[in-house]
Amino acid sequence: MQDMLNLSLAGVAEKIRKQEISPVELTEAALARIEATEGVLNAYVRLNADHALSAAREAEAEIAAGRYRGELHGVPVAMKDLYDMAGLPTTCSSKVRHDHLAEQDSACTARLKAAGATIVGKTHTHEFAFGITTPTTGNPWNAEHIPGGSSGGSGATVASRGCFMAMGSDTGGSIRIPAAVCGTIGLKPTFGRVSRFGVASLSWSLDHVGPLTRTVRDAAITLKWLAGYDPRDPGCADEPVDDYLSALDAGVKGLRIGVPRNYFFDLVDGEVDTAVRAAISRLEALGAVVKEVEIPYADQIMGVEFGLCMPEASAYHRDMLRERADLYGEDVRVFLEAGELISATDYITALRVRQKMKDAWQALYAEVDAVIAPSVAAPATRRDQEVIDWGGGNEEPVTPAFVRLSAPANVTGLPSVAVPCGYSSGGLPLSFQVIGRPFGEARILRIAQAYESATDWHTRAPAL
Amino acid sequence: MQDMLNLSLAGVAEKIRKQEISPVELTEAALARIEATEGVLNAYVRLNADHALSAAREAEAEIAAGRYRGELHGVPVAMKDLYDMAGLPTTCSSKVRHDHLAEQDSACTARLKAAGATIVGKTHTHEFAFGITTPTTGNPWNAEHIPGGSSGGSGATVASRGCFMAMGSDTGGSIRIPAAVCGTIGLKPTFGRVSRFGVASLSWSLDHVGPLTRTVRDAAITLKWLAGYDPRDPGCADEPVDDYLSALDAGVKGLRIGVPRNYFFDLVDGEVDTAVRAAISRLEALGAVVKEVEIPYADQIMGVEFGLCMPEASAYHRDMLRERADLYGEDVRVFLEAGELISATDYITALRVRQKMKDAWQALYAEVDAVIAPSVAAPATRRDQEVIDWGGGNEEPVTPAFVRLSAPANVTGLPSVAVPCGYSSGGLPLSFQVIGRPFGEARILRIAQAYESATDWHTRAPAL
Repeated sequence: MQDMLNLSLAGVAEKIRKQEISPVELTEAALARIEATEGVLNAYVRLNADHALSAAREAEAEIAAGRYRGELHGVPVAMKDLYDMAGLPTTCSSKVRHDHLAEQDSACTARLKAAGATIVGKTHTHEFAFGITTPTTGNPWNAEHIPGGSSGGSGATVASRGCFMAMGSDTGGSIRIPAAVCGTIGLKPTFGRVSRFGVASLSWSLDHVGPLTRTVRDAAITLKWLAGYDPRDPGCADEPVDDYLSALDAGVKGLRIGVPRNYFFDLVDGEVDTAVRAAISRLEALGAVVKEVEIPYADQIMGVEFGLCMPEASAYHRDMLRERADLYGEDVRVFLEAGELISATDYITALRVRQKMKDAWQALYAEVDAVIAPSVAAPATRRDQEVIDWGGGNEEPVTPAFVRLSAPANVTGLPSVAVPCGYSSGGLPLSFQVIGRPFGEARILRIAQAYESATDWHTRAPAL
Repeated sequence: MQDMLNLSLAGVAEKIRKQEISPVELTEAALARIEATEGVLNAYVRLNADHALSAAREAEAEIAAGRYRGELHGVPVAMKDLYDMAGLPTTCSSKVRHDHLAEQDSACTARLKAAGATIVGKTHTHEFAFGITTPTTGNPWNAEHIPGGSSGGSGATVASRGCFMAMGSDTGGSIRIPAAVCGTIGLKPTFGRVSRFGVASLSWSLDHVGPLTRTVRDAAITLKWLAGYDPRDPGCADEPVDDYLSALDAGVKGLRIGVPRNYFFDLVDGEVDTAVRAAISRLEALGAVVKEVEIPYADQIMGVEFGLCMPEASAYHRDMLRERADLYGEDVRVFLEAGELISATDYITALRVRQKMKDAWQALYAEVDAVIAPSVAAPATRRDQEVIDWGGGNEEPVTPAFVRLSAPANVTGLPSVAVPCGYSSGGLPLSFQVIGRPFGEARILRIAQAYESATDWHTRAPAL
């Protein structure tokens, strides 16, 4: 049983297709694995055992009858509890939403169901996705440490072999941060690539949805099933969908990789710095051409990120904050109240700077095919830790420390994938991200795949 | 000479093409006409006699040499003084900009120059386009009355035969209001149809640029030369450009025209109501199918218009307002200061309501091909008049009274053309507007043309 769960999504899919693995047995194994680890991890708001087993039985019958739908058919996956799933509550891990019942599926839920996936449960998020610690949940590599966030439950369950893919959402790093600190792949697609319909919003102009998986190929497979236009999401783009799989193994020979000379390496943990630079050297050895690049408007990235996120979140929560302020966690409530004090002219100024930033990054991609940088500045912090001590009296609160390297891809809307690249001396995962041009997911996945194929980090499992 | 100036743009173009009219003589006539009326109208910030005559001589030589460029070649036109013209100041009719010199042409200036037009001068705007009275300028039909605004100079000069086309800009009605009260055509194209590059911004998400002309065909010709994608304007749309002329005379037989049962006729001058309903009956007699329609989110139109316009204007003016507050006119300064007090959450709420409004109007166009309504609620008010007395103690300030019927097409971004439809008992022009679906300029121009062809309002000239 445990062996099945150690396969990648692509690997298990192949065996399901050949009827060498039973979707029902696989789903039972996944549910058992989750139940065995929940005491330590608490990754789930709720399990959907009945739904998942019923979907698995249906998948098994269909496949036996020769109606195989594709790679996700019969594969256990999970949804961050921001995604609506008809008939179930979408709690956003908040008491504010204890009585919220979804009437219809989110776009991603519907696409995953149509692909035949078995949705085993809804994973914990930092309340309303507004934070990066996910205090409900433990890190599978060391449960005293945070799983990152806001998609912390998705990171924890994918890393601990509870399921083969879990959906996250990413407004300032909320897919890539848990992926980085849990040691999984985390793919934030281009703004508009995947529909956000039916996913609770944190900040509509920065929100992205995407998968956390154990391998790069699994992320490419998931994107293949999720990408595409949906008019129900006003931010969704009517752009052609690439083939993410056909050139996945084409390697990096001749690809130009930009390494930032400013911003991304300015203030990072020494082990992170070493591991990411080693990963870049590895890609260079595989044939990539490495060039230094200058990150534009670097000193305005965090101002724009928070200048957009905070008032957009406050606007979304306005009525709920009036009616149910006492049900919010204090950290989120304070953020939402602060966001109401931002002026429209400051918000508009942030929008204008963002446009300049997007244009400048666009120009960068004339010089390079991708930018590689640390996903986050440090390994997972302890759950009780409030600041990172950078030495010399420089203490940084945990939230901005984890957000500042992921936020550039939110502000610009560029696709970015977080990739494991080793472990700290404390045994915690390290990660780099590959940031690409708009709708260039195929390219960044190909670079990530080249690195993953040359290393074995993705094969290691946490001891739980 | 006066005869030439009474021709339409299309009419004069035909004679220029056949070399029956000399562009140089035509430009001289236009400049002489403007000089003869400026004492009463004061429509211009500055005349460009040297530039215009030099362009006219060049046009004349080119045409004589067989290199006719098209309908605008050798035709005198004018630009609202928000449009940059390389080497000239762009004053925005404001002391704040007395020292502003344009380094390059706006997109429209460049396109008009490339089409061979002779740009006779820069017309007055209400200061920074933030108002509808254009206090510098008189109405050609009665100079004691306002020419509307903010493109008041453009309305006054086109109506008084100073030139054949003048560019305006429209954020809450600033093309259609002066067109309506001066008795010209005023075309506000779809948001994104014509590049705003090089035009001073009032409110970037509501600003549109377009022409004022004496006939519908002249507006269609101008749009043909101006429409198209320009990446230098972030709002510009990469949409195919229709042929605005080929079906212009196809008539309205079978076209479905929506007549609003709410909002647009709720509070309008009796003569306006009568004239607009008569115009609709005329179109029905010509074969249009008239249907009642319900205007969606009617009670939120003005909240969204001002909720977006005011903070966007304040953001644009922020630094200037800090440095040069005393140089603004009091009305504009007060608006800009008030805009700084609007919260980001209110602004974001206005954006969200706007999106719902756009979707609801979109649905309306499943039922009808166009909506017809009064362009403005009343004929031109006196220049010293601050309110409109609707009777029963209901007094409405002039600005919202003129903006409220034009604003819907700004908020939704839909194309709208103002068309003369008679005169008040006081001899002032009356007007209706045709509002179409996104990028449906060809359709609304065709409806306007059907009406214009059946009437002779456009042939009347003010006695000056």
